[in-house]
Amino acid sequence: MTRPRFQTFDDPSHRQGAARIRALRETLHAAGLDGFVVPRADEHQSEYVPPQAERLAWLTGFTGSAGTAVILRDAAALVVDGRYTLQAPAQIDTAVITPVPLAETSAAAWVGARMKAGEVLAYDPWLHTPDGVARLERAVVKAGATLRPVASNLVDAVWADRPGAPSGAVVAHPPDLAGESATDKLARIRAALAEAGCAALVISDPHNLAWAFNLRGADVAHTPLALGYALVPREGRAALFLTSGDVSPELRTALTPLAAVHPRAAFEDALSALAADAARIRLDAGTAAFALKLRVEAAGGVADLGPDPITAMKAVKNPAEIAGARGAHHRDGVAVTRFLAWLDAQGEALTEIAAVEALEDFRAEGGLLRDVSFPTISGSGANGAIVHYRVTRETDRRIRAGELFLVDSGAQYADGTTDITRTVAVGQPSEAMCEHFTRVLRGHIGIARAVFPKGTTGAQIDSFARQPLWDAGLDFDHGTGHGVGAFLSVHEGPQRIAKTGTVILEAGMILSNEPGYYRTGAYGIRLENLVLVEPRTVPGGERPMLGFETLTLAPFDRRLIRADLLTPEEMAWIDAYHARVRAALGPDLDAATRAWLEKATLPMVALA
Amino acid sequence: MTRPRFQTFDDPSHRQGAARIRALRETLHAAGLDGFVVPRADEHQSEYVPPQAERLAWLTGFTGSAGTAVILRDAAALVVDGRYTLQAPAQIDTAVITPVPLAETSAAAWVGARMKAGEVLAYDPWLHTPDGVARLERAVVKAGATLRPVASNLVDAVWADRPGAPSGAVVAHPPDLAGESATDKLARIRAALAEAGCAALVISDPHNLAWAFNLRGADVAHTPLALGYALVPREGRAALFLTSGDVSPELRTALTPLAAVHPRAAFEDALSALAADAARIRLDAGTAAFALKLRVEAAGGVADLGPDPITAMKAVKNPAEIAGARGAHHRDGVAVTRFLAWLDAQGEALTEIAAVEALEDFRAEGGLLRDVSFPTISGSGANGAIVHYRVTRETDRRIRAGELFLVDSGAQYADGTTDITRTVAVGQPSEAMCEHFTRVLRGHIGIARAVFPKGTTGAQIDSFARQPLWDAGLDFDHGTGHGVGAFLSVHEGPQRIAKTGTVILEAGMILSNEPGYYRTGAYGIRLENLVLVEPRTVPGGERPMLGFETLTLAPFDRRLIRADLLTPEEMAWIDAYHARVRAALGPDLDAATRAWLEKATLPMVALA
Repeated sequence: MTRPRFQTFDDPSHRQGAARIRALRETLHAAGLDGFVVPRADEHQSEYVPPQAERLAWLTGFTGSAGTAVILRDAAALVVDGRYTLQAPAQIDTAVITPVPLAETSAAAWVGARMKAGEVLAYDPWLHTPDGVARLERAVVKAGATLRPVASNLVDAVWADRPGAPSGAVVAHPPDLAGESATDKLARIRAALAEAGCAALVISDPHNLAWAFNLRGADVAHTPLALGYALVPREGRAALFLTSGDVSPELRTALTPLAAVHPRAAFEDALSALAADAARIRLDAGTAAFALKLRVEAAGGVADLGPDPITAMKAVKNPAEIAGARGAHHRDGVAVTRFLAWLDAQGEALTEIAAVEALEDFRAEGGLLRDVSFPTISGSGANGAIVHYRVTRETDRRIRAGELFLVDSGAQYADGTTDITRTVAVGQPSEAMCEHFTRVLRGHIGIARAVFPKGTTGAQIDSFARQPLWDAGLDFDHGTGHGVGAFLSVHEGPQRIAKTGTVILEAGMILSNEPGYYRTGAYGIRLENLVLVEPRTVPGGERPMLGFETLTLAPFDRRLIRADLLTPEEMAWIDAYHARVRAALGPDLDAATRAWLEKATLPMVALA
Repeated sequence: MTRPRFQTFDDPSHRQGAARIRALRETLHAAGLDGFVVPRADEHQSEYVPPQAERLAWLTGFTGSAGTAVILRDAAALVVDGRYTLQAPAQIDTAVITPVPLAETSAAAWVGARMKAGEVLAYDPWLHTPDGVARLERAVVKAGATLRPVASNLVDAVWADRPGAPSGAVVAHPPDLAGESATDKLARIRAALAEAGCAALVISDPHNLAWAFNLRGADVAHTPLALGYALVPREGRAALFLTSGDVSPELRTALTPLAAVHPRAAFEDALSALAADAARIRLDAGTAAFALKLRVEAAGGVADLGPDPITAMKAVKNPAEIAGARGAHHRDGVAVTRFLAWLDAQGEALTEIAAVEALEDFRAEGGLLRDVSFPTISGSGANGAIVHYRVTRETDRRIRAGELFLVDSGAQYADGTTDITRTVAVGQPSEAMCEHFTRVLRGHIGIARAVFPKGTTGAQIDSFARQPLWDAGLDFDHGTGHGVGAFLSVHEGPQRIAKTGTVILEAGMILSNEPGYYRTGAYGIRLENLVLVEPRTVPGGERPMLGFETLTLAPFDRRLIRADLLTPEEMAWIDAYHARVRAALGPDLDAATRAWLEKATLPMVALA
C-alpha cells in the first residue's frame, strides 16, 4: 500500500510545559498582565483546528479535543471534561500545571478563586464566544480583578516555529451532491434575516460557510472545511473571506454571481463597513468570536447574538444529500463488512493499530474516500471501555481470544459522511459479555424502531436506548446520538438524541444511534448505525408521525446476541436488518466475504 | 344522606359580561387609564382561590382554573389555554369579549398588538409575578405604551357584593402525620437561606406555609390551605400573617416558640421592616406577587427572586407522610372498589352526576374524609374525551350501554391526598375501545415498571407512557404525571412526568401515572394511579437505581384489556397488581363487593 494514510498513531505529548509556560509568564510579566487563558479553540470554535491553532497542545502537551488552560503568575490549571480526566495528567507536566476536572470546577470558577483584587487576566477575543467571555468576566470581577482582551495571542509570541495559516484546496461541492444551489440557499438565508430584523449575517462557522456556498476545503483534518468568514447582507452581494488562497477556478466562476471572494485579511474592515449606521448584524451565538462583537460595536453596529439560521437549514438533508448518504453508506458497508470478515479470520494475530490501518485500506479501495471522518477508536479488552480511546504506539495491544473488540470509525466520501461502531467477539465470549451486548443491542433497536409524533425532540426518545440497561441497573455516560453532516462534520448540530436534545427531530435529519455499555478494566460495547428521520404513516393513526430509516449497512455479531433476552419484535428487527444488509451488499462482495456475510446474517430463529 | 357534599353541579356562568365590563371601563376612564388586566389568580398564584378572588369569573362568566382577560377601551379578550378553548366561548358573552387561544396569542402579545403609543395599561401588582409583569411590560413598551400598577384592584371597585376575606379554621397538622417538627423544618429552611446568602425568606405559597409550620386551613375549596404569608429571617423568630383569624388555640400554643402569629393586615409593614438596611430577601419566583418585590425594594432591600427552598423539601415525603399516604390509599381503594362494584350493577340507570355523588358518599363512609381533592371528572361517552370535563346540570347525561365511562377523582383525607382515574365499559365495548384501552394500560405499566438511575428527570421517562400509543399513530396532549402533596395540593410541584419535567426524581416523591387517549366525540380513556419513588436494588447492577411503588389500590376493567396485545411482563404486572389489590382490600370489603373484586381481579391468563 503506497497510499499515505489519514491516521497516525504517535503520541504527540512532550511534557515541555515547564519551559514554554516560563516563557509565556515572562511575556505576561512584561505586558503587566497577571494571567492568560488558553482554550483549545480556533477562531471558529471548530472541533478540528488547524495546526497553527493548537496552542493548548503546544503549551501543555495535552492533545484532547476540548480543554482550557489558565496560566497565572504562581499557578496554572488545565480544566478538562470527563473524557480527558485520565489523558490530561498523562500528557502534561503536573509539576507545572494542575489538571482540574470540569465536573468539579470550571475554568472561570478556578480563576475566580485564585485571582487577587487589582490583577488583570488577559484573553484572546478571537478564541472565546461572548457567552464564554461573560462567564470569565463574572468570575474575575467577583474577585475584584479585571478581564482584558489582547490584540494578539500571547502564546504566538513565544511559539517560535508556529505553523502558518492553512492553505488547503477550496473546491466546489458538485450541484448533483449539494442538491440546492447556493443562490436558493442565500434566498432562504436572506428570508430568515428579514424575519429576524437583521441587516446582515456573519457566517463564522466554516461548516455553515461550506453548506451555504456549496464549497469544500481541506484546512483541517477529517472535516472538509475551508476556514474563513462570509458576510451576507440582506440586500446586495455576499462576500467570502477565505484563509486559504487556493480557490479553484471552477469555484471562483461559480461564486462570481453570488459573492466576492477576498482574502481573510480583508474581513475585519468589510465587517466594520457593513456594521456602520447602526446596522443590526446577526452573529452566531455558538461560534462567533467575541472579537466580532467588539468589531461590530466599534463600527457603530448592533451585534445581534442568536442562532445562525444556516445551522437549522443544514440539518435537514435534501433528496440529493440523502441519495449521497445512501451511496456513501453502501460503499462504507462493503468496506466494513470486508473488514469484519477479514478480522474474523485473523484470530489473535492482530493489534489495534493493524485493525485501524486495514479498515482504512478497505475503505480506500471502495473509491471516493476523501478522509476518515475522525480518528478510529480501536479498543480491545479494557481499552474498549475507554469511551474516547485513541490508540497510540504506546497503548497498542494485541486483540486476544476471550476479549471484545470495539471499532468506532467513519469516512468522508465525496457524497456523504459515515460513522459506525461494531463490537465483535474474539474467541469465546463470556456470558456477561453476551448479556450486556444484547442489552445494548435492544437499546439500539429501541431507537431504530421508534415511531413518534411530529414535534418530538431527541430528549424524548433518548431513554428508549437506555431502558434495557436500566432494567439491569446499568447505563452509559454519553448521549445516544449526534447529528451528522453531508460530506461535512461527523458531529453536526443542532439535533441530538440525548437528555439535552431539546431540538425537534425533523424528516431529513441524519443522526447516530449509538448506545453502549462500558465495564471499566474489562470491555466496552457500543453499537452504532446512522439513521435518517422519515415520515411514517401508521394505519389507523391520527397524528403525523416520524420514524427512522437505518442508513448504515453492516452485520452485528450474532455470536454475542442472546436470543432468549429478545422480544419477538426485536428478533424480527435483527433478521430484517440482516436480510437487508445481505441483499444490499452481497452483489458487491467477493465470494469469500459474501459467504461469510451469509453465515453472519442467518436469521436469529436459527439461534433461538 | 344528610352530609352536605363537597361538590355542586351548577353552571355558574351568567354572561353578564356586558354590563360589568361597561362599569369597569367607566372606572378606567375616570382614572385616566386605557386598559386593565384581569388574571384568574389570587395573591398567592394558587390553583384554588377564595370566592373574593374570583374576579375573572365575576367579570366574564368564565370559570376555568386559568385564563387572563384584558379589557381595553374598544376591545376585550379572554386568553385561555387548550383545556378551555371550548368552555370559554360557551361561558362568556362573545359580543363583548373575544376568546383567544393561548396557543395562538399570549395576553401580552394581544395587548402589544392593540395598544397605541401614549396609552396606559393598568394591572394589580398582587395578582402577577415579577416574570409575568416583565412579559407584559415588554409588549406594552414595544407598543409605545406604559404599564402601571394600581393601588387597589379596579374590578373590586365595581363588584358591589364581592365576598369578604376567607376565614376558615386554621388547625395543627398532627406530629404523627407531619413526621417532622416545624422546628426541624425551620432549621433546614434557614440552612438553605444561609447557603443562598439571603437574610430572610418570604413564604408566599400557602402550600409551603402549611408544610413549614405543620398547619392546615380551610380558606379555599379542595386544598386545606390557610391563606397568608410567613417571614422567616435567618436569625430571630419567624412571623405568620394569616388571612383567617380563626386560629385554633392548640396551633397558637404549638407555634408560640417558633413564630409570632399576626393578622394578614400587618404583613406589608413587617416585610418593609425586614427589608431595611439592604437586606437580601428571597421571594419565590413562582408565587410571589410583584407587589412584594416593589415593597422590598421600596424599603431598601434586595428582592432575590429564586426558588422557595420549601418547595423541594416538601416534595420529598418523610416516612410518616408515606405511611399516611398508604393509609389514605387503602381507605380510598375500598371506597373506589365499592363504587366500581356498585356501578357495575347499575346498568344504564346512572347519570354522570349520580355517579359523582355516589363515589363521594362511599369515600365519606370510610372516615377521615376532609374534602374531595378536586371536582370529580365524570365523563361518559363523548364527555369522556373532554380532558378537563366537569359535569353540570346542563351537560349531565345517562351512562349508556356500549359506552366508556371515565371517572377521575380524589380525596383529601387527614392522612393523605389521593387521585385516581378508572375507565370502565358499560355493556359491550367495541374492538377499538379495547385496543385503545390496552395501549393506554401498557403505557401506564411502562411507567409503573420503570427502573431508572438516580439523577433521572420526569422528562426522561415520560415517553415510556406514550410508546404504545405512538406505535399506533396516537398520543395524548397532557403530561403523564404531576406531583401530589401530603394532605395538601393534589397538584404539587416541582416534579412532573412530562416533556417539561426537568426536575430530578427523588426517593420519597409522590406522582401520578396517568396516560390517556381521547377520541373526540366518541370516548376518553385515562388510567391513573399514584406512585411513590423508591430506591431499587438490581442484582448485578452497578448504579443506584430508583423505581415506583404503586400506592393506589383499585382494579382495572379486565373486560377492556386485550391480552393478545400484552407482553408476558405486562400481563404479569397486571396480575400481580390485581392480586395485591385483592389481598389488601378484601378484608375490608362487604361480602358482595369482595365477591365482585375476586372476579374482577382474576389472573389475565384466564383471559388469554
